[in-house]
Amino acid sequence: MLDISLLGTGGMVPLPNRFLSSMIMRYKKTTILVDCGEGTQVTLKMLGWGFKNIDIICLTHFHADHVAGLPGFLHTMANSGRKEDVVIIGPTGLIEVVQSLLVIARILPFKIIFKEINKDTLLNFGEIDINTTFLEHRIICIAYSFEIKRNGKFHIEKAKQLNIPHNLYNTLQNGNDVEYMGKILRSTDFVGELRKGFKITYCTDSRPVESLVSFAKDSDLFICEGIYADDKKINKAKEYKHMLFSEAATLAKNSNSKELWLTHFSPSLKNPEEFIDVAKFIFENSYVGYDRITKTFKYRED
Amino acid sequence: MLDISLLGTGGMVPLPNRFLSSMIMRYKKTTILVDCGEGTQVTLKMLGWGFKNIDIICLTHFHADHVAGLPGFLHTMANSGRKEDVVIIGPTGLIEVVQSLLVIARILPFKIIFKEINKDTLLNFGEIDINTTFLEHRIICIAYSFEIKRNGKFHIEKAKQLNIPHNLYNTLQNGNDVEYMGKILRSTDFVGELRKGFKITYCTDSRPVESLVSFAKDSDLFICEGIYADDKKINKAKEYKHMLFSEAATLAKNSNSKELWLTHFSPSLKNPEEFIDVAKFIFENSYVGYDRITKTFKYRED
Repeated sequence: MLDISLLGTGGMVPLPNRFLSSMIMRYKKTTILVDCGEGTQVTLKMLGWGFKNIDIICLTHFHADHVAGLPGFLHTMANSGRKEDVVIIGPTGLIEVVQSLLVIARILPFKIIFKEINKDTLLNFGEIDINTTFLEHRIICIAYSFEIKRNGKFHIEKAKQLNIPHNLYNTLQNGNDVEYMGKILRSTDFVGELRKGFKITYCTDSRPVESLVSFAKDSDLFICEGIYADDKKINKAKEYKHMLFSEAATLAKNSNSKELWLTHFSPSLKNPEEFIDVAKFIFENSYVGYDRITKTFKYRED
Repeated sequence: MLDISLLGTGGMVPLPNRFLSSMIMRYKKTTILVDCGEGTQVTLKMLGWGFKNIDIICLTHFHADHVAGLPGFLHTMANSGRKEDVVIIGPTGLIEVVQSLLVIARILPFKIIFKEINKDTLLNFGEIDINTTFLEHRIICIAYSFEIKRNGKFHIEKAKQLNIPHNLYNTLQNGNDVEYMGKILRSTDFVGELRKGFKITYCTDSRPVESLVSFAKDSDLFICEGIYADDKKINKAKEYKHMLFSEAATLAKNSNSKELWLTHFSPSLKNPEEFIDVAKFIFENSYVGYDRITKTFKYRED
């Protein structure tokens, strides 16, 4: 079971009714935050998922609206009793930027492990793979995809036929061999091939570069910026290196994603939901994100 | 006419229903902000006084809850069209802290003039004097008082007797001599002695040090932290170098201030207004501050 929530959906400046773009996901015991603009800790408090269990913070780039909330956020994590290491991932410049911001949060009770990304990278954290790719923005910026690996199907009928006790099923399913009644039971004899898990792709801020199509390929959820809804704003989108609703929807379609959540709206876009048809016309399963929109992904037992 | 508003009244962490402690004041064309925690730009947007005219930013100290909002705030000032210099005042360490935070707001269209305070100081900005004094907190911290100078009374009857045209009154009242009908009219002949203007004192975070009594003497408004309402929390207040409601009220009384606004409440203090009697018992004119509480001070024409 994978939970996803957009903590904020605004771009550029935090507004009284819209926090800055940020996403949080949790899968089993791992919680990952993507981006941390000013106010992210407040909207997370409203969501109520807690601060103590955040293991990984991914930063897309170092414009203030994506990172200015970090020192306060880490401070609040410290106050929540976090002691374990926290991994912070971000593009080139990460260490300098975070250490500069920490001038006002110098003493933290946990260690920060930096992963500075300077080329497209795959990082593995147990059952979660994090992939990065470089985007086209005014400064260096990366997109993230999160892939949850899923164990193969457990052949329960076979286990029953052999009278293997129930309490050994989990161990075998998780890839461990077991000794039982003097015999070695091999996990591979009871578990099928790895199955497709979930794939979530997160992209702010960028022009719609071609490489995103393969990067986001077959995503269960593609979260993508759409700073403007109106196609007439294409020149402004190009100038500031952002994307229109229609461009995000085209990426969702071409990448064969299952669902699109638009985010990172311009402060001038007061009611983005009024323009959802612009995206739906290209990619039916498009939704306008809003602060703390939440979805739980469950496996279909097939 | 002097306008004052508390942009936030919380301490330590920003909450969904309470911004971090900050004050804004405007007098004629000068606007001054005191402290800038995470979210200060959002509550100022809610207040609606604008970002472009902020000339002076005073920082009390460099704990995150008083300064983490600065890079985003300056960025929004830039987007509002600010071009003129901005003065930033703060205790020793100011330049290092602000320049570190500006790692995410490197290019600003205005110049920052730093005033780093390393001893009790008087700074003059036209009709406004800003005084500082050092406090007793866990790190170096200063209180501010703002004194508005007020010109002497204009002797209108005398001007009328001499048939001086109305359009010269203002010039004379503002201290300028004027040539009229071949004679020099001296301002000092028409204007009385300087009169008492307004005095506003702002103090977060500190233990109630004795020097505050003279520093805040005769304030029209004393804005002071009261992190806890309950006197039983005195040990905690001492440990973290903060003040109780009763300690702030005692300072207000002993300094002969006219009015006290309490601020910087602990997140554990959900409804500070329930405890106002603790302060009123000591100093009747005590009020519990709340986000965007606003007051306009006008001169009584005496």
